[in-house]
Amino acid sequence: MGEQEEFMLRVNDLYRFEAIQGHLGWDQETIMPTKGAKARGEILAWLAGQRHSRLIDPELGELISSLENKELDDFLTANVKEMRRKYDEAVKLPTEFVSSFTKARSEALISWQKARSDSDFSQFAPHLENMVKLTRQKVEYLGSESTPYDVLLDEYEVGMTVADYDPLFAGLKERLVPLLSKIMESGTEIPRLPEDMTFPIDSQEMFCNQVSKAMGFDFEAGRMDRSTHPFCAGLWPDDTRFTTRFDEKDPFSCLYAVMHESGHGLYEQGLPREHSYSPVGMAVSLGVHESQSRFWENQIGRTAAFWNVAMPWFREQFPDCPDWSNETLDLVANEVKPDFIRVEADEVTYNLHIMIRYEIEKMIFNEGLAVEDIPETWNKMMKDWFGIDVPSDSLGCLQDIHWSMGAFGYFPTYTLGNLYAAQLLESMADELGDIDDIISSGDWSSMLSWLRLQIHDKGSVITPSELIESATGKAPSPDAFLNYVESKYSKLYNL
Amino acid sequence: MGEQEEFMLRVNDLYRFEAIQGHLGWDQETIMPTKGAKARGEILAWLAGQRHSRLIDPELGELISSLENKELDDFLTANVKEMRRKYDEAVKLPTEFVSSFTKARSEALISWQKARSDSDFSQFAPHLENMVKLTRQKVEYLGSESTPYDVLLDEYEVGMTVADYDPLFAGLKERLVPLLSKIMESGTEIPRLPEDMTFPIDSQEMFCNQVSKAMGFDFEAGRMDRSTHPFCAGLWPDDTRFTTRFDEKDPFSCLYAVMHESGHGLYEQGLPREHSYSPVGMAVSLGVHESQSRFWENQIGRTAAFWNVAMPWFREQFPDCPDWSNETLDLVANEVKPDFIRVEADEVTYNLHIMIRYEIEKMIFNEGLAVEDIPETWNKMMKDWFGIDVPSDSLGCLQDIHWSMGAFGYFPTYTLGNLYAAQLLESMADELGDIDDIISSGDWSSMLSWLRLQIHDKGSVITPSELIESATGKAPSPDAFLNYVESKYSKLYNL
Repeated sequence: MGEQEEFMLRVNDLYRFEAIQGHLGWDQETIMPTKGAKARGEILAWLAGQRHSRLIDPELGELISSLENKELDDFLTANVKEMRRKYDEAVKLPTEFVSSFTKARSEALISWQKARSDSDFSQFAPHLENMVKLTRQKVEYLGSESTPYDVLLDEYEVGMTVADYDPLFAGLKERLVPLLSKIMESGTEIPRLPEDMTFPIDSQEMFCNQVSKAMGFDFEAGRMDRSTHPFCAGLWPDDTRFTTRFDEKDPFSCLYAVMHESGHGLYEQGLPREHSYSPVGMAVSLGVHESQSRFWENQIGRTAAFWNVAMPWFREQFPDCPDWSNETLDLVANEVKPDFIRVEADEVTYNLHIMIRYEIEKMIFNEGLAVEDIPETWNKMMKDWFGIDVPSDSLGCLQDIHWSMGAFGYFPTYTLGNLYAAQLLESMADELGDIDDIISSGDWSSMLSWLRLQIHDKGSVITPSELIESATGKAPSPDAFLNYVESKYSKLYNL
Repeated sequence: MGEQEEFMLRVNDLYRFEAIQGHLGWDQETIMPTKGAKARGEILAWLAGQRHSRLIDPELGELISSLENKELDDFLTANVKEMRRKYDEAVKLPTEFVSSFTKARSEALISWQKARSDSDFSQFAPHLENMVKLTRQKVEYLGSESTPYDVLLDEYEVGMTVADYDPLFAGLKERLVPLLSKIMESGTEIPRLPEDMTFPIDSQEMFCNQVSKAMGFDFEAGRMDRSTHPFCAGLWPDDTRFTTRFDEKDPFSCLYAVMHESGHGLYEQGLPREHSYSPVGMAVSLGVHESQSRFWENQIGRTAAFWNVAMPWFREQFPDCPDWSNETLDLVANEVKPDFIRVEADEVTYNLHIMIRYEIEKMIFNEGLAVEDIPETWNKMMKDWFGIDVPSDSLGCLQDIHWSMGAFGYFPTYTLGNLYAAQLLESMADELGDIDDIISSGDWSSMLSWLRLQIHDKGSVITPSELIESATGKAPSPDAFLNYVESKYSKLYNL
């Protein structure tokens, strides 16, 4: 066996272990009986160990080094590059460190759940402090010359640093804060659903299923299930599973969760199958993944044109719903409100929520912000930018799970997703014509084909920003998003 | 690390791989999207390879050899013994042979499905011939001094050979055939459900769920799902999943499938957790497993006493069902009829179905019966014992999946299950008092506790027949079953 084949066999094995971990994780979040949790945690840890021991195998390291000095095709080059990154990270982190990190994380997660439910940051603070300490230690082990926060940012979106994000967020803030003020001053009244109305779960499920199918999600190669927090998992070729949750009083919450997760699912279903179980066959980044979900959720789903198509389906399931026009529904689906919770935020305030987390993470890792000072810092930013007083930590700095998991540097990828989505929409319109017309036609296949060609088919051969540039002809920038959001909301709110 | 610890670590790893294979198999049969089949088959083959390469590791062989010469506790002794059996089998079979067996099996399975649907044995014959040839070859590789069929029988129920089964089946036949004749001559009319009546799936599910809970199945440590063929999988500690199927015209089919699979499930839920992921922590044999399912399905479920308890639950779900007495329901649930299909057979004819398969397998492997002569042999036995003419191969020798999978020697374990169940019932009654009274009380926990203590808790420390003897004070024998079945059906049919 040649060394290329030997390398790929080892890579495929590693990614097969990952696929199995992903599958068992999906099962755990959706249908596992509660008492199965202990054994599941144990088997997942065991799988992680199996995978880790293969990843740090010196023979893999030698194969990588040898292949780095050879002329290889683009796919193999990209695979070698990504495996170098993974291998180096794995061998640099001592096994005991990885264990103590895993242990601290699971304790922090439990503490966070309790602290959030009690709305008491002080319970969580020592655990968060520990996660920060261990994360700093991890950065040291990795031994980069960048600032600590740059190392963390790069882990979640390769190539992105504070030098990239700072101007980007500044640009967003500069135009979003005034837009928000104008919207708030417009005095537009948002219609409300009748308080006594309920939307049966089964009907919501039928409606959402129809929307997901219209987007092109292939239910013969995937599933929709329920979980506490919606997510999408591309488990293996032709098996992509997403989840949603249902609220009997609010059919829109489930609808947009389904459009969001179906968007992720379409990306997974469109990845190049000939490269399954290797880096180039995977989604290129969290930011690009988020662009696919946001595209369908917001740019397609939160439009009057969408309701041109979806209204008959909606009425079929909910014949007693108010007789709203598509424009009214559009306004309901795009209500802007400075509020506390990120995951419920509209398109105008969403990125400001992200920016608060980005700024605080940057302060923690690069400027020495003490963990105990996080609530005050958080609440001050919410007051300055949103004009609202955070009444409790559970509605403030305790709302997100990410820090308890040590996922520092993850949040900004959500904003990248929003920016990429708008940039893709702009280019798509240039090539396919008026997007509202396409949406209203009810045949959305040309949009999916465009995304398949420009994004999904490409896997991870080039970097995220190269991919966006190849799809849109421009380097990633916030311009398209700002133009989109200003134009959309000016129209909606008659600004 | 001592060699005992090293041995157990390796054993645990092997069984963890098996647990994952089991889980992915469960998913495949229940909820996997159809297009996921190809990748699933591939990952299962990969896992089998991962497991196999660990099993044939010479270092494992050395550990087994070394521990065989040491004083060990009962658990470790049993683990070493079982691993010796597995290791020897794995190292004796060349890897290419295992691959070609696997390939032939998957082709035979496809051919069998088509042949059964076309009711054409000749399509399947060459594949069956190949499976027989490969199975003979396997027996040769294993290099035993027993007859080929003895080797196969021993694989599915350790310690059982033709010398054990022959008198057992002869004894059964001697008393079951006359019993069947008497029942047929009794002219008893079995009431039928009204033809236009339907039993909604959701209501069936609620009813069956209630019965399964009453048996003691813990739904916080397990699930009930749907699949084409009902089965039960003890995936890992505190996660046992069984399946059923629904027929809108016949609520009893699902009920007894659920009681059967819940019986299997109770065994899995009761296995000794401290020995998870090792041989002694597993069910001791297929025969004993089947005894647990048959106990609940037949000895408990197919009684008038059961309907004392279950009738109110049944009426709650199906208020329009006929106003039958518990005795009538008992008769409906115990209709005896010489018919073609094993899985639908009553307690009187079931073991005769098994015996036909046993005799034919014995002829194939020990007496050189040609594959092409199977249909004629089969049909002649059906005529002799049941007095019926098999109209087509799909209702005859093509009905079961087992041979296409190369599972020769498996069928007799079903009969062992029936015999063990009756023997356990007899001893249970000696200790707990009248079983009908216990069933009628609606509190079945004393029966489950008895099974836990005598069977489930024991895992696989002793052999199946030792286990039955320790639970009942007698070596396994057909007497209890024959007494049970003669007494039950004489009463039901006024013989």
